[in-house]
Amino acid sequence: MRKKKLSQRVVEEKADQILVLEANIDDQSAESLAPVLDLLMDNGALDAFFSPIQMKKNRPAIKLTVMIHPADQQAITYLILKHTSTVGVRYQTMRRTIMPRHFMTVTTSYGDIRVKVVNYDDIEKYTPEFDDCLAAAKAHDVALNQVYLAVYQQLK
Amino acid sequence: MRKKKLSQRVVEEKADQILVLEANIDDQSAESLAPVLDLLMDNGALDAFFSPIQMKKNRPAIKLTVMIHPADQQAITYLILKHTSTVGVRYQTMRRTIMPRHFMTVTTSYGDIRVKVVNYDDIEKYTPEFDDCLAAAKAHDVALNQVYLAVYQQLK
Amino acid sequence: MRKKKLSQRVVEEKADQILVLEANIDDQSAESLAPVLDLLMDNGALDAFFSPIQMKKNRPAIKLTVMIHPADQQAITYLILKHTSTVGVRYQTMRRTIMPRHFMTVTTSYGDIRVKVVNYDDIEKYTPEFDDCLAAAKAHDVALNQVYLAVYQQLK
Amino acid sequence: MRKKKLSQRVVEEKADQILVLEANIDDQSAESLAPVLDLLMDNGALDAFFSPIQMKKNRPAIKLTVMIHPADQQAITYLILKHTSTVGVRYQTMRRTIMPRHFMTVTTSYGDIRVKVVNYDDIEKYTPEFDDCLAAAKAHDVALNQVYLAVYQQLK
Amino acid sequence: MRKKKLSQRVVEEKADQILVLEANIDDQSAESLAPVLDLLMDNGALDAFFSPIQMKKNRPAIKLTVMIHPADQQAITYLILKHTSTVGVRYQTMRRTIMPRHFMTVTTSYGDIRVKVVNYDDIEKYTPEFDDCLAAAKAHDVALNQVYLAVYQQLK
Amino acid sequence: MRKKKLSQRVVEEKADQILVLEANIDDQSAESLAPVLDLLMDNGALDAFFSPIQMKKNRPAIKLTVMIHPADQQAITYLILKHTSTVGVRYQTMRRTIMPRHFMTVTTSYGDIRVKVVNYDDIEKYTPEFDDCLAAAKAHDVALNQVYLAVYQQLK
Repeated sequence: MRKKKLSQRVVEEKADQILVLEANIDDQSAESLAPVLDLLMDNGALDAFFSPIQMKKNRPAIKLTVMIHPADQQAITYLILKHTSTVGVRYQTMRRTIMPRHFMTVTTSYGDIRVKVVNYDDIEKYTPEFDDCLAAAKAHDVALNQVYLAVYQQLK
Repeated sequence: MRKKKLSQRVVEEKADQILVLEANIDDQSAESLAPVLDLLMDNGALDAFFSPIQMKKNRPAIKLTVMIHPADQQAITYLILKHTSTVGVRYQTMRRTIMPRHFMTVTTSYGDIRVKVVNYDDIEKYTPEFDDCLAAAKAHDVALNQVYLAVYQQLK
Repeated sequence: MRKKKLSQRVVEEKADQILVLEANIDDQSAESLAPVLDLLMDNGALDAFFSPIQMKKNRPAIKLTVMIHPADQQAITYLILKHTSTVGVRYQTMRRTIMPRHFMTVTTSYGDIRVKVVNYDDIEKYTPEFDDCLAAAKAHDVALNQVYLAVYQQLK
Repeated sequence: MRKKKLSQRVVEEKADQILVLEANIDDQSAESLAPVLDLLMDNGALDAFFSPIQMKKNRPAIKLTVMIHPADQQAITYLILKHTSTVGVRYQTMRRTIMPRHFMTVTTSYGDIRVKVVNYDDIEKYTPEFDDCLAAAKAHDVALNQVYLAVYQQLK
Repeated sequence: MRKKKLSQRVVEEKADQILVLEANIDDQSAESLAPVLDLLMDNGALDAFFSPIQMKKNRPAIKLTVMIHPADQQAITYLILKHTSTVGVRYQTMRRTIMPRHFMTVTTSYGDIRVKVVNYDDIEKYTPEFDDCLAAAKAHDVALNQVYLAVYQQLK
Repeated sequence: MRKKKLSQRVVEEKADQILVLEANIDDQSAESLAPVLDLLMDNGALDAFFSPIQMKKNRPAIKLTVMIHPADQQAITYLILKHTSTVGVRYQTMRRTIMPRHFMTVTTSYGDIRVKVVNYDDIEKYTPEFDDCLAAAKAHDVALNQVYLAVYQQLK
């Protein structure tokens, strides 16, 4: 696992290539499948998610999708095969347009909050860092939305 | 289990009362949960279905819902507790408006097909019996929709 | 259909009672089911939504849920039976806690936007009116989020 | 945006190639995401849809999928990045088998309705134009299904 | 919040009554809604889960469902209104059949694991405690399923 | 259709290539779409499943996904176009890592049950054959889980 996740670092490229892994899970409980998402994210997956699917024989099953750097294929495949009940993993390569990004810090009455700033052509978007906002909301015992609102009001 | 399912008999009432049972399933595989739907339908359930839900600890789980005649509560509860991993079943009573119904038979080039005729106020609706249509489609090796189309064309 | 929807008027009560209607739809196409939501909302439903469900015989079906004032039961039942393929509708009564609400207007560089203000105990929340924001975004050819951000910045 | 959507024109090809765009959305409300589908369809997307997904940290999120002509990649990417909260878009190329199609008009008691006729090998399918049927149903104050039924009965 | 959750204690009753709370969320991001599940569970909810729903105006929204002891109605309502964007909460009472339960401990090569034993009529079911199994799997760096298998093999 | 499905035979390869077919279905009922899954599996599809999607114009639709051997493209495409309402099918090629597998038989008090044994690197997993377990459960009138438990206990 070589690179930090995009969401947590400054990015200057505008495009890259990723590998998307999929596996259908119909013989494992929700309870035992759940920890796999965090496990994969902790080991370098760029993203990982579940989709509800309806399989043969009326099975209310789950599709696991994992997005990774191509170099991590072997390591992530090993983790999926070890920690889920699937007997196979399928792959496709996808190109990606990514918005170059940097971080700024905004001072609010709930403390300092990092804000991710992303750009593309004439588009500029600001995303308050979720973990900072959640920590601030808990520290001040306010609703998470209060913190987001405070950040938005400092963005002028 | 005392009554036949509504969908398979002539009905003259316009309202009744049913019991709706629910259970959340997060510690059983899709594979082993799947046969439960048929099992419940075969034992008198009026309807039974799965809904995808997202539970605590990021579990991609399933809610089982079963609609029954109130008199079947004990028998169906037993089946759910025996054949799923749930440790409890919850109940609510619901009133129901139902459309009185009778059957007619339509002759098509794919054979005779029963059609359910339902009425309410000035509304009249025709529903070709799915099992008849599927059997006819297989017997004549045509798409299911061909059979439905043939039935619709005889409804004039 | 007697009352305007809560979301569009000043509300002073803190609780009321509603009727929740449900019907499972497995013999109607998505295409023909879709317009029913708007039809129901236009005829006084407080809310209406679809949920994906998995029924007997592996049917990837839809549950329609409609929330109404109890006085509208007959009229809404008629519409559901007329415009969907279902042959029955089931009902449950639910109590409701509602946040008393009034409206204020906020002036932004994209024009005036109404904001719904709701209260409960020491909680106060502000919700910019979606339709106002969407109209402003279109009129100024900006992203919807730009308008929301402008509203949030005037809420101080 | 150069071509009209397949669904609205005569098609003679039997295969083409499309670009499929995807983005996961977890930091935007359903309310503000909803108008994006129409926006994309109005700007040349061949199709666009939402799928419910379950992301890291127990987020009940949405995957946006958009199918386009490859030549529209830049324009559609711009719209997604501008109107959603995503910071990246991923792409894959897919080949497509398409059924050549033409239109016929059917006269019913609810007026003239266009019907799309598609062919492939020995398969022939008829699809009444949804917009024509909906308009006729509203004009005659009948259920949409009544209009479809009337069309099917003229297809002999 | 008065009682410990059923899943964590010895239970002797065979039935009880719960309150089910629901709210539709269409104006809050998945990111900010996600922490609410844990918050509610930590404050006495018996269960809490999200369901994907499709609301008016094509909104890909979420229904929040919370099951509680009736005595917790006011406290949990407050938390939902404070921490989500909803402006109302609806309630229904449900009866519940619950399986009386006690715990036993099983010794495996991965350490001691608690197992919940539930009974109803002639049904007896064993559920290894998920948290014990997960901790053991992490401590021994094995797949979670290995631990479950080890527990099942000791149940004879 | 040339090869037996992976799940039912001894496999020695560790990788292969498959074709994934997709079609969005919005003008066909759940009832008539349901039999298509079995039809495709019976005709050589490696896997086939439905996903709930939300399309333009608020349609609660279904995406059909089918995984096949590339050599079956023409035959499976024909079946999809014949038996569903879609007017096109899209394709992508995916590589696959598969776990080599063989079968063993385990003797339990419910009879002999085949168990699939799969390997990859240092990973070894055992999957009791679902159809064997279901048949045994029915023959002995016990819950399916009882049979699985009996198999797990013989795996030592």
